[in-house]
Amino acid sequence: MEERPVRHVLIIANWGKTASHSLSQTIAEYLARKGITSKVFRTNAENEPLEVQDGTDLVICLGGDGTVLYCARYLQDLGIPILAINLGTFGFITEISVDEWQEAIEFYLSGKNCISRRLMIRTAVLRDGVKVFTGHGLNEMVVSSSGISKVISMALRIGDTDAGFFRSDGMIIATPTGSTGYSLAAGGPILDVDLSSLIITPICPFTLSNRPLVVSGESRITLTIPKGQRTGLVLSLDGQQTFPLMEDDVIVVEKSRSKALLVTSERRNFIEVLRDKLNWSGGGLHA
Amino acid sequence: MEERPVRHVLIIANWGKTASHSLSQTIAEYLARKGITSKVFRTNAENEPLEVQDGTDLVICLGGDGTVLYCARYLQDLGIPILAINLGTFGFITEISVDEWQEAIEFYLSGKNCISRRLMIRTAVLRDGVKVFTGHGLNEMVVSSSGISKVISMALRIGDTDAGFFRSDGMIIATPTGSTGYSLAAGGPILDVDLSSLIITPICPFTLSNRPLVVSGESRITLTIPKGQRTGLVLSLDGQQTFPLMEDDVIVVEKSRSKALLVTSERRNFIEVLRDKLNWSGGGLHA
Amino acid sequence: MEERPVRHVLIIANWGKTASHSLSQTIAEYLARKGITSKVFRTNAENEPLEVQDGTDLVICLGGDGTVLYCARYLQDLGIPILAINLGTFGFITEISVDEWQEAIEFYLSGKNCISRRLMIRTAVLRDGVKVFTGHGLNEMVVSSSGISKVISMALRIGDTDAGFFRSDGMIIATPTGSTGYSLAAGGPILDVDLSSLIITPICPFTLSNRPLVVSGESRITLTIPKGQRTGLVLSLDGQQTFPLMEDDVIVVEKSRSKALLVTSERRNFIEVLRDKLNWSGGGLHA
Amino acid sequence: MEERPVRHVLIIANWGKTASHSLSQTIAEYLARKGITSKVFRTNAENEPLEVQDGTDLVICLGGDGTVLYCARYLQDLGIPILAINLGTFGFITEISVDEWQEAIEFYLSGKNCISRRLMIRTAVLRDGVKVFTGHGLNEMVVSSSGISKVISMALRIGDTDAGFFRSDGMIIATPTGSTGYSLAAGGPILDVDLSSLIITPICPFTLSNRPLVVSGESRITLTIPKGQRTGLVLSLDGQQTFPLMEDDVIVVEKSRSKALLVTSERRNFIEVLRDKLNWSGGGLHA
Repeated sequence: MEERPVRHVLIIANWGKTASHSLSQTIAEYLARKGITSKVFRTNAENEPLEVQDGTDLVICLGGDGTVLYCARYLQDLGIPILAINLGTFGFITEISVDEWQEAIEFYLSGKNCISRRLMIRTAVLRDGVKVFTGHGLNEMVVSSSGISKVISMALRIGDTDAGFFRSDGMIIATPTGSTGYSLAAGGPILDVDLSSLIITPICPFTLSNRPLVVSGESRITLTIPKGQRTGLVLSLDGQQTFPLMEDDVIVVEKSRSKALLVTSERRNFIEVLRDKLNWSGGGLHA
Repeated sequence: MEERPVRHVLIIANWGKTASHSLSQTIAEYLARKGITSKVFRTNAENEPLEVQDGTDLVICLGGDGTVLYCARYLQDLGIPILAINLGTFGFITEISVDEWQEAIEFYLSGKNCISRRLMIRTAVLRDGVKVFTGHGLNEMVVSSSGISKVISMALRIGDTDAGFFRSDGMIIATPTGSTGYSLAAGGPILDVDLSSLIITPICPFTLSNRPLVVSGESRITLTIPKGQRTGLVLSLDGQQTFPLMEDDVIVVEKSRSKALLVTSERRNFIEVLRDKLNWSGGGLHA
Repeated sequence: MEERPVRHVLIIANWGKTASHSLSQTIAEYLARKGITSKVFRTNAENEPLEVQDGTDLVICLGGDGTVLYCARYLQDLGIPILAINLGTFGFITEISVDEWQEAIEFYLSGKNCISRRLMIRTAVLRDGVKVFTGHGLNEMVVSSSGISKVISMALRIGDTDAGFFRSDGMIIATPTGSTGYSLAAGGPILDVDLSSLIITPICPFTLSNRPLVVSGESRITLTIPKGQRTGLVLSLDGQQTFPLMEDDVIVVEKSRSKALLVTSERRNFIEVLRDKLNWSGGGLHA
Repeated sequence: MEERPVRHVLIIANWGKTASHSLSQTIAEYLARKGITSKVFRTNAENEPLEVQDGTDLVICLGGDGTVLYCARYLQDLGIPILAINLGTFGFITEISVDEWQEAIEFYLSGKNCISRRLMIRTAVLRDGVKVFTGHGLNEMVVSSSGISKVISMALRIGDTDAGFFRSDGMIIATPTGSTGYSLAAGGPILDVDLSSLIITPICPFTLSNRPLVVSGESRITLTIPKGQRTGLVLSLDGQQTFPLMEDDVIVVEKSRSKALLVTSERRNFIEVLRDKLNWSGGGLHA
């Protein structure tokens, strides 16, 4: 266990949550007393450009799961750890609650708590052979209708193998971190956050025999959008960044080269969050 | 691509399937013409002891998925590849159909087709601190009622973490290979067979909020059976080997040290089997 | 068994399916030989106004399930039986296949085959106390996002009881006929088409503990759209008729006063269609 | 609203729950003060024969959902209302909590609260044409394995229609009251308790395409047990009464002629119990 040298911290505060106003100030002062400089970035929207000063050693994120997704996306290739303090309802990603902030930072500085290295996904859209979009996500990539009619069709390839043609309300390619997000609502399994796998979860598929499929994180997943759709289609990353699709577009999803570095809580791990959130010992059914 | 030197083959024939009677003979003669000796082992039950002669380079398995599970269990630590030819309805594990047998063997000898290295699980039962049972499985380990009353209770640990207390009809710990077996019927996801993960799927859980959970293949999963059960309990491996449990037993499930080596088909891979079996492009629902 | 006097028939032909061009002519000539006048209405879109001449005793519908939904909606309160001949892939609603058309019409005229009386739903939207929309559906009413962001929130009342507040991708209120449509894709149960019940199926609900709920066909189901939605909302009937919703709208769903009268096949009933479509004896899972 | 004349009450107390010891006495004294005679029956097991004195106008049941099931089964054809006071964890059937007992009895006597008339099922087993078993249930009838091997096969008929051949861990035929019991754990929908429908829910079916099916309460459902099972089979009613099955047995399930009469709470109805138990407004998923 070695001390972690931290000289400059970026505090990203979800300004929509008023608790972040004073907490960001309190944390900045606390860091200053330790000789650590910091800058507070106030965010109000999920697509605000985020500037990161050279020499930033740590990001402290004040908000909910959505704010962490935003940070992870914008910090994607910088290799800076994110210490997320949860200001909202108890989150799946933000394990550190607001009353633990000081302990968590101290643990981090003294090298005590771990860094969870989370798989992210990189999505590219090819149109007539030209890459027209690239983006990253910590939770998931979704292709779905952008309009009123919901059913879309698409072809799925996993690596070099044709995996079938789908009619559904959409398709989710989720990371382990994203397994407790939209994919779960669509019927997907929960994955331990440390796995290097991707989940392919169709949304309301047109056939009864379809099931969520978990593939290696090394897989290259390709979706193609055939002609003849009844609606516009849209690609969405972490529910925050969107890109309108066109017929014949080819969407390639792979793991990102970098991982998101999330500082974990000393008090509870992912399995314990699950146990409490999912209420496994919970209310009974059978008489 | 190198030739694979094969001198002696063990042919394991599910004698309950009459097609195996002549096919085992035909294959033995075919191998003899190539200067390869072979022995036919006729199996009628899932727990028949299986002797493997020293110097056996390859096992050819004639039967259905159940026969492969039997072979994998008995060959568990020998490192001998299994070339399974499907005599039954099209299987998930046995990708090679009966009319492809010669091509498949030739491909194998010439080094063409691949060997899929499949995670197996090792299960131990501790009673008063003493190991009273050890067994291996290629598909899954199930703890369930052995009697008329179905609901049992148990505590789950993943690694060192208490993952909750369950009331259910049972618990399945499945491998990726087993993800298309009993775990799927109980609502589990499908995993690419090459993953190193384990699936924890409760059977008819007493609570609505439970979901299948996929954890690392490095995980040590522990089930403990509290006092006060309303029924006898039984542990089952691959639906073939069973062991009666007692209250206070501790069941430890980990990946086996060795993997099952399954010769793959040149004609179709796992994703293609899925596509065809699961009929992803299949009959529609919405009007 | 009494003969059914038929003097005038309206033939509604889905002109997008070319098989309907000659078949509508053939049927008209066949009817003429029996002294029955007929008129062919060519439909190309799901919202084309449909005129029904006084004295029309029977509608013959040539198309797929979607064409029947269109007919049922436009004929909603006229009490005219619909004999639907399936021109597409085998449908859930259109049990009569194209090679059975003559037999089916003869059976109908001679009083042999039954008429299935199907519950329809009536949906009204109240805005500031004023009814701004009314429509009918044979399959389902859906409230969902009309835009890119998917999650909407709404409050559900069943009769006079507050049944909770939902966050989901939408809500389906389906009839028994609609139980094999979108509701099934969203995880709903299948209902015998002759039941007088409604199914409340949330789409990708935000909570794990939600389940589809079947209530009496006499129930008055009310959805209210609270302020603060992140997206536009739309109401959709049978996937064919849509109405844009606003915050504070109140949506009331009840059974329609009239039922859809569908002429059944002599050759197969709903359970047999299910058995064949759902492949209950189908491909196995466990090894 | 008329007063209900009550002269004699049978108090059935689940003696395993110690709270019932004093409460049964308190209620008996309370009734005596109103000039109502009563008798306390102490039950310890689910299959204890229950004697009901002539002239009993009301049964007060002290226990959990299981105790109500027991009462309903033994009182099946007597037409006596059951006022169930919940002594356990909050139940689906027992809506009246222990602190409401006096209010609930007073409301009942003054004719205020309603009586919910619940569908029950009657199950008969025919062996070589002879009826060898008859029983009733308020929740469900289950056919499943009685041994270690789980998979059984059976043929299903609904009315006169062959509905297919199943391989599964069993089959549940549930009432609306039973829809929140074992059927729910096996993936079935929730039905409003006042419906007259039956739910057919296969347990871990061998095929992906199967779904729970809701049919009319007038349906006659027949299960036949073909030869060649790998395990013993057992029929179970409400998880309390069992009957061992043999190959070639024919099981006929229909609604019982009488209904269970359950006194409802004034404070909450079924939908409200659902809302609170199922936590529809509960913890969120998407980030």
